[in-house]
Amino acid sequence: MKLEKMVGERFKEKPSDCVVESHSLMVRGGYMKFVASGIFSQFPPLKRICRKIEQIIREEMDAIDGQEVLFPVVLPSSLWEESGRYHDVGSELMRMQDRNKTPMVLGMTHEEAAVHLVREYGQSYTKYPFMIYQIQTKFRDEGRPRAGLIRTREFTMKDAYSFHTSQEDLEEYYEKCFRAYERIFARAGIGEVISVASDPGMMGGSVSHEFMLLTPIGEDTIAICPECGYKANQEAAESIVINKPTGEEELKLVSTPNEATIDDIRKLFGVGYEKTCKAVVYKKNKTGDLIVVFLRGDLEVNETKLRNYIGEDISPATMTDDSILPAGSIGPYKLTDKVTALFDSSLKNLGSLICGANIKGHHYTGVSLSRDCGNPDMHDFAKIKEGGICPECGKAAISISRGIEVGNIFQLGTKYTEAMSMQYIDQDGELKYPIMGCYGIGVGRLAASVCEVSRDEYGPIWPITIAPWQVHICALRADEPQVREYADKLYNELQREKIEVIYDDRSVSAGVMFSDADLLGVPIRVIVSPRNIKESCVEIVTRDKRVNMKVETDHCAEQVKALIAKLTAEIEEGIST
Amino acid sequence: MKLEKMVGERFKEKPSDCVVESHSLMVRGGYMKFVASGIFSQFPPLKRICRKIEQIIREEMDAIDGQEVLFPVVLPSSLWEESGRYHDVGSELMRMQDRNKTPMVLGMTHEEAAVHLVREYGQSYTKYPFMIYQIQTKFRDEGRPRAGLIRTREFTMKDAYSFHTSQEDLEEYYEKCFRAYERIFARAGIGEVISVASDPGMMGGSVSHEFMLLTPIGEDTIAICPECGYKANQEAAESIVINKPTGEEELKLVSTPNEATIDDIRKLFGVGYEKTCKAVVYKKNKTGDLIVVFLRGDLEVNETKLRNYIGEDISPATMTDDSILPAGSIGPYKLTDKVTALFDSSLKNLGSLICGANIKGHHYTGVSLSRDCGNPDMHDFAKIKEGGICPECGKAAISISRGIEVGNIFQLGTKYTEAMSMQYIDQDGELKYPIMGCYGIGVGRLAASVCEVSRDEYGPIWPITIAPWQVHICALRADEPQVREYADKLYNELQREKIEVIYDDRSVSAGVMFSDADLLGVPIRVIVSPRNIKESCVEIVTRDKRVNMKVETDHCAEQVKALIAKLTAEIEEGIST
Repeated sequence: MKLEKMVGERFKEKPSDCVVESHSLMVRGGYMKFVASGIFSQFPPLKRICRKIEQIIREEMDAIDGQEVLFPVVLPSSLWEESGRYHDVGSELMRMQDRNKTPMVLGMTHEEAAVHLVREYGQSYTKYPFMIYQIQTKFRDEGRPRAGLIRTREFTMKDAYSFHTSQEDLEEYYEKCFRAYERIFARAGIGEVISVASDPGMMGGSVSHEFMLLTPIGEDTIAICPECGYKANQEAAESIVINKPTGEEELKLVSTPNEATIDDIRKLFGVGYEKTCKAVVYKKNKTGDLIVVFLRGDLEVNETKLRNYIGEDISPATMTDDSILPAGSIGPYKLTDKVTALFDSSLKNLGSLICGANIKGHHYTGVSLSRDCGNPDMHDFAKIKEGGICPECGKAAISISRGIEVGNIFQLGTKYTEAMSMQYIDQDGELKYPIMGCYGIGVGRLAASVCEVSRDEYGPIWPITIAPWQVHICALRADEPQVREYADKLYNELQREKIEVIYDDRSVSAGVMFSDADLLGVPIRVIVSPRNIKESCVEIVTRDKRVNMKVETDHCAEQVKALIAKLTAEIEEGIST
Repeated sequence: MKLEKMVGERFKEKPSDCVVESHSLMVRGGYMKFVASGIFSQFPPLKRICRKIEQIIREEMDAIDGQEVLFPVVLPSSLWEESGRYHDVGSELMRMQDRNKTPMVLGMTHEEAAVHLVREYGQSYTKYPFMIYQIQTKFRDEGRPRAGLIRTREFTMKDAYSFHTSQEDLEEYYEKCFRAYERIFARAGIGEVISVASDPGMMGGSVSHEFMLLTPIGEDTIAICPECGYKANQEAAESIVINKPTGEEELKLVSTPNEATIDDIRKLFGVGYEKTCKAVVYKKNKTGDLIVVFLRGDLEVNETKLRNYIGEDISPATMTDDSILPAGSIGPYKLTDKVTALFDSSLKNLGSLICGANIKGHHYTGVSLSRDCGNPDMHDFAKIKEGGICPECGKAAISISRGIEVGNIFQLGTKYTEAMSMQYIDQDGELKYPIMGCYGIGVGRLAASVCEVSRDEYGPIWPITIAPWQVHICALRADEPQVREYADKLYNELQREKIEVIYDDRSVSAGVMFSDADLLGVPIRVIVSPRNIKESCVEIVTRDKRVNMKVETDHCAEQVKALIAKLTAEIEEGIST
């Protein structure tokens, strides 16, 4: 199409509300427009990118025997009551009532709808296994939408659901899907995506993996062991802390009027972290009941582990002077029994701790949990940290990175089929619940993720497989008849060859033309200019600057085709089969 | 794919909740599943049909320079406040609040979102005209969803919006889009769709057309003049009634204790309709104020005209004995001034009417509206009827049909651009509001409409252009090695040729196999059976029974390809270019 006629504008200034580069470039390049918090409209370039991504996903899902279906966006809440999630899921689930006061929800994931669709179909073991998927709009009422398309409230997602008669069969299919995901990311131009063990969260089930694109702007934190290859989301990674046993000392109450943080305490007493005990307060969202987590002073609470242990939603609680717990002086000894105390394994073997005294401005030294606090059970509530011990190989080699979750796969077990009474008659005549897997990829987030890692300061560098167009013709001085004539001819010729071309024949300066082209990020650019045409040449350059050549006008089309083939082949080489 | 592995079930019994055949067949054929009133999930065959329809629509929209974009499903109500429709539209607009109590709506049409997207882009006349479209899920909280996919609450729709700097330019584009719509319906196999003038309703604007597929199960009523070709939705068709002038008579109060209907009155007095005056009572939805429409006894009120005249939403009001108006005896003479009286043009020239006396069980005879009722203004509030006068050619030739609205196009004028302050600078330097057109097609409704008119008692007969598959292989007795071997080979061969094949190799009876094939409605069926194979033959039959031939096994693939080409060509012949 002609760039002149394309809706959307491109501009230079970085929008003030964009905190990540992909967001900024996609706003500046006329890809998307803000409609409401976490809700965007898509201009043609982004719509084209998303359609290409969807087609790659569709092909890979079909290749592993996926069957494309469509579930509704608006679901009766009764379906979510059946699974129990209507009450389990918090305010991310958008709830509403229709004209007859029937409670409805907007689908944020479709396990319930999937079970509902195939509950009658799947009544005999002979029907299994099977996988259904859809590519559909979802809505998740996020508290903190951010980073453009990285975390939105409304998004297009491919969600797939597989059904099996045995755990082995699920695992076999899970592995297939794992490979399909690797191919999808490779075909989208981000073969560097890694898979990490993850926490299944509200999805239920046990085994799950996230596919992570490592980038500093990612919202997820990933623990990687370079020694053994262990990779896990920090949420799911076990934190292992080994303390040398320390001896017990006498309990002593000390005034600490100015010491509220762990570092204040270390400074005051001149001790290491193995003497410190941090207290972090949470509340249960439903009841408001307080929970205090105690852990070694250098560690942070992993809220996912805490949530899973408690079995309900929690959030950080801020303590003030009026609170039941004195901020800065909370400790396990003489703690009020109106709150629940939990102890992290990092406190094991530490016989003499400096802990808040539960009296404002005071600490106890010499606290022994086994002697003074009833020898409490300890569990893993801490975040694994840089240099921490690898849960797989045991070496203190963990490295922490940030990543964007571009896909996830879950082994769900029978959570949904049991809750929703989906059963089949097995070979032996017995009624059983099918075992499910589910598999998601966000289309818009994938597009933004590619942009985030494949760009320069001037714009995105789209891989040819998902680029909005394959070729961008820049006709400089299209008012000159020879330029116009050749550029028009080339445009028509490439289109006849089914090549996707964006054609810029506006009467704008070369600077404007090239900066617009940079923002559109089309991989192959053909520059037709008066000077080139005089030499019967055109320039072909790639957006990533690896190619920059002059070719004779007569051979331009064939050179472009060869270059498309080459760029495509490079991406395909990275695809595992 | 193999039929054995396809999710969804097919069955014989007509579901009791299906009132139209397309709905029944699409439930029985495993196309769709009820989730909630007017909300369905789609099984693979329907999803495939819809994707093909979407692709046809996309190609035709692109061919008239449409640019595909994507608007959100969930919109902030502030956008609808801007246009004024947040208050104008009734409970069909699904309203809700997000976690921050921000009021949101589900997009049921996207004029607001379209203006929002291009408001900044379209600031200069040089950008015009342009058209943007999306194919996206919509939700309309219908009071009476019905007939399966014909009237749902959630549906996929292609909605397009064009922007122009002059009415002439809009009209030119409107005509282009009109032709594109004709091509779309022809390509989908229903070239018989007609276009009718329609009432723009809540969309605003003046000129609008609906594309109607005539079928008795349609919800719309269409007036057609076979004499001059006039076609309009009954809602929009002017009702012309020409009365011979009748002389005046004396007013007389008559007791009519048992006469409440027009026919009772005609019987009692032995008169024709030209002596009768029907009263129909409505109420304004907002205020509850009553409106009485008086019209000649043989006519019906056209509520659309009444609504447009009143300028707000109305609904029929039921009068009881306690009402301000005595049911069965309501008339224009001595009518309480607490209600609004409106008079239809069909009462013109009638000098002596029998009218309700506004006293229970009484009528007046000899009522002259000009003499006794203040000679009120008369307007067109009536439905055009069978045999009525054509507003175009004036002949009493109107024929009334039922139709399904499969598409609509509207000239919107500047309703949205003015309300939402979208302006451009014209050539003369003046600020002006662009003129809009909008253009919709419901994808699922189109699929159901095709099914409704292209079927037999055994199932749908899908046109090859939108059929879920092109070819259906029935391998009877696939347990016999020769059948298995040949059918497998044919399946692979056709797939290699990129032909879409569904392959039934189940060990079921021929009866089950064929009735399933009938329900799937695939246009070309290849039957491989032990008897045929012995003769080195297969049978090729078309779903519409026009073709039924035996071909040599070696030539089957090429015959199938030729038949696909022939069926496709037949449809293409019907497409105007």
